[in-house]
Amino acid sequence: MKGTFLVTAGDPSSAARTGRIQTPHGTIETPTFAPVASQGTVKALLHSQVEELGAQVILVNAYHLNLRPGLETIAKAGGVHSFISWPKPILSDSGGYQIYSLSPLVKIEAEGVRFSSHLDGTKIFLRPEDAVDIQRTLGSDIMMTLDYFLPYPAPKPKMREAVKLTSAWARRSKDRFLEAETPQQLWGISQGSVFWDLREQSIQDLLEVGFDGYALGGLGLGEPKSELMETLEKADLLLPKDRPRYLMGMGYVEDILEAVARGVDFFDCVLPTRNARNGTLFTRQGKMVIKNQKYAQDFRPVDEGCGCYTCRHFSRAYLRHLHERDEVSSAVLNTIHNLNFYLDFFGQIRQSITSNSFAAFRHTTSAHIEEGIT
Amino acid sequence: MKGTFLVTAGDPSSAARTGRIQTPHGTIETPTFAPVASQGTVKALLHSQVEELGAQVILVNAYHLNLRPGLETIAKAGGVHSFISWPKPILSDSGGYQIYSLSPLVKIEAEGVRFSSHLDGTKIFLRPEDAVDIQRTLGSDIMMTLDYFLPYPAPKPKMREAVKLTSAWARRSKDRFLEAETPQQLWGISQGSVFWDLREQSIQDLLEVGFDGYALGGLGLGEPKSELMETLEKADLLLPKDRPRYLMGMGYVEDILEAVARGVDFFDCVLPTRNARNGTLFTRQGKMVIKNQKYAQDFRPVDEGCGCYTCRHFSRAYLRHLHERDEVSSAVLNTIHNLNFYLDFFGQIRQSITSNSFAAFRHTTSAHIEEGIT
Repeated sequence: MKGTFLVTAGDPSSAARTGRIQTPHGTIETPTFAPVASQGTVKALLHSQVEELGAQVILVNAYHLNLRPGLETIAKAGGVHSFISWPKPILSDSGGYQIYSLSPLVKIEAEGVRFSSHLDGTKIFLRPEDAVDIQRTLGSDIMMTLDYFLPYPAPKPKMREAVKLTSAWARRSKDRFLEAETPQQLWGISQGSVFWDLREQSIQDLLEVGFDGYALGGLGLGEPKSELMETLEKADLLLPKDRPRYLMGMGYVEDILEAVARGVDFFDCVLPTRNARNGTLFTRQGKMVIKNQKYAQDFRPVDEGCGCYTCRHFSRAYLRHLHERDEVSSAVLNTIHNLNFYLDFFGQIRQSITSNSFAAFRHTTSAHIEEGIT
Repeated sequence: MKGTFLVTAGDPSSAARTGRIQTPHGTIETPTFAPVASQGTVKALLHSQVEELGAQVILVNAYHLNLRPGLETIAKAGGVHSFISWPKPILSDSGGYQIYSLSPLVKIEAEGVRFSSHLDGTKIFLRPEDAVDIQRTLGSDIMMTLDYFLPYPAPKPKMREAVKLTSAWARRSKDRFLEAETPQQLWGISQGSVFWDLREQSIQDLLEVGFDGYALGGLGLGEPKSELMETLEKADLLLPKDRPRYLMGMGYVEDILEAVARGVDFFDCVLPTRNARNGTLFTRQGKMVIKNQKYAQDFRPVDEGCGCYTCRHFSRAYLRHLHERDEVSSAVLNTIHNLNFYLDFFGQIRQSITSNSFAAFRHTTSAHIEEGIT
């Protein structure tokens, strides 16, 4: 199987581990955070800035790119790396989540999903095979299977049905995937929410098919934290150690840390970038809402210990001014800070695992988070 | 008089010259283009990008900064350079133009101008002395006098009145300016549109007072090009050679070139930055409207000879995609390109004057512009 994943270190106190995902566009050191670049750009940033901040992989969205600019354009450009000029690894999401969350009309059938474009209402029928074909054309390093996503809470019988369909689609995705040689990887997505019997079934179905990586979908949607963590713990025991695990869309620092402790390797979330554009900044002392009047004459940097471009040069007062004036540079400077915060955090996680101090790091960070500020 | 301006080279075929303006925050090589940073940020760019593009000076707006964040905040920060963290020269516009163009209620009196804030309707009375005081607090390197601006076309009797008031205000500005020592410069603004007798009177009144630099205000508003150029030619003969001349708000490349040939040293305009955000890109082959369908699968850079970050990495097709998706990075990448185009153009102007080839450069550039593309 391509895309070998190599575990490079393990934490003795938990299931946390570091690893390396090999892709045609380079290596991804895990645990890792993929900034979201749905449309082929991390919102508000230039690729050069994303690279400088230390991102190893970005996430593009097959749903969005397939609608606009369309596959034909990206194929003619030579694939998504070439079209967007990002030289490093790219993971493409299949678009399952977007179909269910953006489309005004969705109808699930055994064969695939029927939906209308949220942009112009065009009716589209997407089968799991199509999702594979689309991502093959994109040429992303890591492709995701098309899953059947349900919001939380969903009744158990409905979730059972979703798991069944997701498993059938995963098998068909793999079959399609095997029809032609490709250096790309295909990762399967499990569903089942926090119903462990359903999640277990979903994961076992995926394991039977066999994928390069395993994603936990449909979590972080408001389910009780204890049930989420229990699900991660049980999944850790079920999933093979030699494959990366991806907890989709989960973005709170405290959850990430606990998920890493339960053996998760790969994360993505719009939280740092979206919050930045709304003027909410992450610091080691908690969240900072930059528009607050109390920052109007606060000439300190956002985070005095932070080394990002924003904190090295600009004050809370100036950032508040830019935010209040609705300046584009407000979005840019805030995003630089928040993404630096996340990527730096993942660097610290990896470092602490490698140096056998993850338990201490986890403890200190959790304590800091509990103190909080605003 | 502070702020010595030194002419360093002259073009034998025209009144074009290169020069150096000394300011407390560094030297400005002229002819120069000041990117507009009304609110203390060049729209869509980070300061580091503006510096990398070769900007030597930026323009902030005293009207805007006085309203928000307010002088008290900027004073507490230690001045505008410190507040916005821009280490190089800053020219502050007095805000005359903004009062007349943005405020819903303006009343001119001999003593000053009465207007209401375009933001919240607050009633403000601004005297020329206040404009000096405000800019002194800002600590900009170059301050502008408060003038009485009229739109084009204005009836001659009204313009005569505007010139008279502008001259009286210029004298009062200078008097106020002399009340305290400062390393800042004060530049006077002439009015009179293309009525030469009025413009001449306005300039002579300013000369009698004596300023560190002389601005031509109220031009580039739609007056016939020949009358504008005639005004510049006559003004060139009237203005002292050892002071910089500033043609306010004039932004078309072809006009800039002709103004330089008539002895103008300093320019500012929102054109490159505003057009960028609207998706209009400047190239040596003319303007390019990036949203046009014909660029959807055009994988060439915007300008094949351009060395900016945008052109080195991204295709017209990708830039069109970002523009159509309303991505922040569209504004950023387009602004980088357009500002690079302008600053590069000014570098070529200076280079051609220094190397005694301005006449040829002017000829070639004008011919290129006349061919055009879209």
